[in-house]
Amino acid sequence: MQHDERYMRFALEVAKTGLGQTAPNPAVGAVVVKNGEIVGFGAHLKAGEPHAEVHAIRMAGDKAKGATVYVTLEPCSHFGKTPPCADLLVETGVKRVVIATTDPNPLVAGKGIEKLQNAGIDVTVGVLKEEADELNRIFFHYITTKTPFVTLKYACSLDGKIATKTGDSKWITSEEARRDVHSYRALHDAILVGVNTVIADDPRLTVRLSEGGKNPIRIILDTHLRTPFHANVIQDTEAETWLIVGSDVPKERMALYEKPHVRIIPMNAPNIDIRELLHMLAEQKVTSVFVEGGSRVHDSFVQAGAVQEIVAYFAPKIIGGNDARTPVGGVGFAKMADVLELTIKRIETIGSDIKVVAIPKIKGES
Amino acid sequence: MQHDERYMRFALEVAKTGLGQTAPNPAVGAVVVKNGEIVGFGAHLKAGEPHAEVHAIRMAGDKAKGATVYVTLEPCSHFGKTPPCADLLVETGVKRVVIATTDPNPLVAGKGIEKLQNAGIDVTVGVLKEEADELNRIFFHYITTKTPFVTLKYACSLDGKIATKTGDSKWITSEEARRDVHSYRALHDAILVGVNTVIADDPRLTVRLSEGGKNPIRIILDTHLRTPFHANVIQDTEAETWLIVGSDVPKERMALYEKPHVRIIPMNAPNIDIRELLHMLAEQKVTSVFVEGGSRVHDSFVQAGAVQEIVAYFAPKIIGGNDARTPVGGVGFAKMADVLELTIKRIETIGSDIKVVAIPKIKGES
Repeated sequence: MQHDERYMRFALEVAKTGLGQTAPNPAVGAVVVKNGEIVGFGAHLKAGEPHAEVHAIRMAGDKAKGATVYVTLEPCSHFGKTPPCADLLVETGVKRVVIATTDPNPLVAGKGIEKLQNAGIDVTVGVLKEEADELNRIFFHYITTKTPFVTLKYACSLDGKIATKTGDSKWITSEEARRDVHSYRALHDAILVGVNTVIADDPRLTVRLSEGGKNPIRIILDTHLRTPFHANVIQDTEAETWLIVGSDVPKERMALYEKPHVRIIPMNAPNIDIRELLHMLAEQKVTSVFVEGGSRVHDSFVQAGAVQEIVAYFAPKIIGGNDARTPVGGVGFAKMADVLELTIKRIETIGSDIKVVAIPKIKGES
Repeated sequence: MQHDERYMRFALEVAKTGLGQTAPNPAVGAVVVKNGEIVGFGAHLKAGEPHAEVHAIRMAGDKAKGATVYVTLEPCSHFGKTPPCADLLVETGVKRVVIATTDPNPLVAGKGIEKLQNAGIDVTVGVLKEEADELNRIFFHYITTKTPFVTLKYACSLDGKIATKTGDSKWITSEEARRDVHSYRALHDAILVGVNTVIADDPRLTVRLSEGGKNPIRIILDTHLRTPFHANVIQDTEAETWLIVGSDVPKERMALYEKPHVRIIPMNAPNIDIRELLHMLAEQKVTSVFVEGGSRVHDSFVQAGAVQEIVAYFAPKIIGGNDARTPVGGVGFAKMADVLELTIKRIETIGSDIKVVAIPKIKGES
């Protein structure tokens, strides 16, 4: 059992190499062990490319026969872009398969395990399950709810202001915190902001890490199509930009934004409905959205009950002012009994700032 | 040296017994050690009563002669309500005195040490100085600036709201955090709130700890004398209430509030000036003020540069709303370059909440 945890921990490390680049697939790692030696390992790195098990079995070569395979997610049992991994493991003649967590994908959901067991393979399930569930929380949410995993991010002063009353917000948090934000961007399929943020700050919304990192789709909530032509999200072609508009925006106006990297997506109603938007994004294989403001957009997501994680940075500063913007503005909740209750997942200092990661409490949980 | 730290740490523990009850004096602890044995110890517990050294020397009796005395603050050299402790130590014939930190009180400020050295006593200064300075930060601030030490406290949601848009604020934080607030109250000479907080919440502003605790003076900033007669701070007599009013309030109106525990203190101008108020409070021997809101009062203190410590509680909740109050409202700062920069002293979880203690950065510090 101790050995199982050790190898599974390594499989989880291996899996992480694919984080943020496997969508709409999960990040998975596999390790092949024979006579107490690691003889192969692999990770799923991109949708359409081989699964973790395939890489690991290939690396193990002949040694895979009679080996134990550790895999962070239940092997698939269906034909997708690649043949089922459960079949591969059976054909290879492995002796035992240790699985961290089952695949909630209705196409798999226990069928992979069944296939292995029917072939006489010894199967153990649940080793480091919690860590594996955490690793693929985005994929699991996406596959079970058919909506993207939404992370809401904000950076504010210790008195909860995202800018001064005049709109000055450069810079509230430290460079270290701002770099951390870029890592989060790289982990998501899309970054989303409201058009007011584009008008006020003209952000590029790209990933600027020294080690590179893929650029997520830039999504702008722009009901009346007010994004300026000269905005960075329109002018630079480093990432796709999707402008989400209401149903009232005339086609001729949309035509003005015609560029290879710009898409205009009209909703079914004059105003943008967050739930409708999320279902549309999921259909477009967007599994995760990093919502970076502003204040009103955050409120829309909170009010729609569409937040899976909150990442908040607090700078050791007091800005003050009744007219200064706060991280979640808009209409808000009227009664304390109705507010969004959270569970703190992590508190850490980053640069001179405090970072808090929290997740909504499940209703009824106390 | 190792022994010195050990005994001084005990002296600091002993000193803490007086915290919050010695004003306008500092909390001091003393330990007498002879031949590796503690033979006496004591603390200053109340202004006018014996100093720590006196209690400790008394407990040691004859053994004090030739002993080493550990004291958390330089022994006094002047006649106050009690005779100088430096003289007592000399007369007792102690061999060595170990001092954590010097007394910034201009009446002492090195003169105590001088007296001891002139009498041939071996003096060591600076053992656990940082801890001793922290212990008496209130006294040191008061004695050097001639204004009370101001602690600004607030409790808000993770998105920086102290109430919902309708004013509902019961309860944002957990019971544990609210209990922690009562400990802070007991440590200060006065609690201060604005009249709007009295009108909205009708707080009692008393210390309600299972172990008791003295009740600080309740100070209400009430420029136009609007505190309701039926308010708890007027009706209950558990603590003194000082109503700070502008110079325009008619004497007849003030007379309506005549009660043994209520004082009305008019300022020199129609509006309350925070700096003037603090100097007046210091003259009244108020060494520390715990400012509990509201939003505008906090801003007044921040704008006046009159905050020595901030204690912020963040509840894991999202309230949202542009119209919901934030911890520091009022006018605020216009530019990021001008905001109040802080240094984080401590972050901890308390109940389900996050507690952050921060102090203003000294100008020029980075």
